[in-house]
Amino acid sequence: MPANVFSNSDFFTRYMELRKELNYNDLLEHPEMEKLLPPLIGRSVLDLGCGYGAYAREFIEKGASSYLGLDSSELMIAKAEKENSGKNISYRKLDLGHLEELEGKYDLAYSSLVFHYIEDFDRLVRNINMKLNDGGILLFSQMHPLISASYGYSGYFESDYFAFTGYQDEGRREGKWFKQKVISYHRKVSSIISTLSFNGFFVEKVVEPVPNEDLLMEFASLERDLIRPTFLIVRARKVPFSAH
Amino acid sequence: MPANVFSNSDFFTRYMELRKELNYNDLLEHPEMEKLLPPLIGRSVLDLGCGYGAYAREFIEKGASSYLGLDSSELMIAKAEKENSGKNISYRKLDLGHLEELEGKYDLAYSSLVFHYIEDFDRLVRNINMKLNDGGILLFSQMHPLISASYGYSGYFESDYFAFTGYQDEGRREGKWFKQKVISYHRKVSSIISTLSFNGFFVEKVVEPVPNEDLLMEFASLERDLIRPTFLIVRARKVPFSAH
Repeated sequence: MPANVFSNSDFFTRYMELRKELNYNDLLEHPEMEKLLPPLIGRSVLDLGCGYGAYAREFIEKGASSYLGLDSSELMIAKAEKENSGKNISYRKLDLGHLEELEGKYDLAYSSLVFHYIEDFDRLVRNINMKLNDGGILLFSQMHPLISASYGYSGYFESDYFAFTGYQDEGRREGKWFKQKVISYHRKVSSIISTLSFNGFFVEKVVEPVPNEDLLMEFASLERDLIRPTFLIVRARKVPFSAH
Repeated sequence: MPANVFSNSDFFTRYMELRKELNYNDLLEHPEMEKLLPPLIGRSVLDLGCGYGAYAREFIEKGASSYLGLDSSELMIAKAEKENSGKNISYRKLDLGHLEELEGKYDLAYSSLVFHYIEDFDRLVRNINMKLNDGGILLFSQMHPLISASYGYSGYFESDYFAFTGYQDEGRREGKWFKQKVISYHRKVSSIISTLSFNGFFVEKVVEPVPNEDLLMEFASLERDLIRPTFLIVRARKVPFSAH
């Protein structure tokens, strides 16, 4: 991930301000990810793009034997080590584009809202597969392709209709966040699933989260997720064969 | 499929008029389906919702040992038997909602643009799995969920943006075709994939077809498929395990 915005200290500070309040991720994405977790007791967890390690302790509390968080941002890793360290928890600065540099194998590869920043998805998935024990699980979430499709993420609502463009045109997108250019990569749902299968993953479950009634009562803006999804979540299992 | 429009003789006649000319299916859907066919030599083919058997002979010419076409419309089956019969080709009137009534097992279950008419997808997929030999393939296309999402299929283009509603709300949709009410069932991509996996299919490949340059030169209206897909195509393999 060249020019990672999370390595920019100004951006980092603003991002951390944002994370202080409940946001879309906490409300819609994280609960679904939790539901899809495999049994963790005695399992080793690799967190791909761990940020400041917000969920490190949760994994250990759920019984994981170890947790290793990877992130390409030195600022994130420093904050993680300061705020979310503990027994069997470790962090390492590593770009997910170079996962082959990592030693060892893991039982769960977990990744929350990071994969849309990765340019070479095929390579990423192939590398993750190699870092998993047989039967290991890859559980990840990412920006939904309906959101990443439009150039500059310029999808829009008109009444209860959501309009997008560029879905069929995969590749680089430039968005803005706190006046900072953010690069991500649009991939079609079909490509994401096909790439996983091709590289030896059995796609067990795909989820496009919908807010429940309690959430809607409290956060009316989530109503838009009753129309189009914001996130795509996939749980896949490493199988002893691939479609190669 | 209760109240199947294809069993209505007026609708049937108009549909056949339409099929005389090259259409979206011939241009965009069928070539992709062909590319995804497994080796056919010596294999038995089950065509789910075969219509008038347009591709029956093609399967036999490609080496299939047998072809059985199922359709719930008596008019379609009669036309198929009259126009597309041949050695190792047979047809049977059967509603896909009652696939358990079929005897025998097959190597390929093929279905072109029919599954969006089926109300109970979980039951359909479970039944298909039971009718396949181990390692057998299910290859199907259907209306893309971005098209079936909006109530009454009222998605629309505004310049190069495509607008839809109702994606997250699965269920019955009423559309019109030749002034005839057509019922179909909207399902999210995530549900379609998850249901296949849950019922013992390894989803090998998912395709959202894009027109190539030759097609675009000849049929400018296909440009819209450079923005949003019209079809969803899935190839899945029966595996000796399921996610149950």
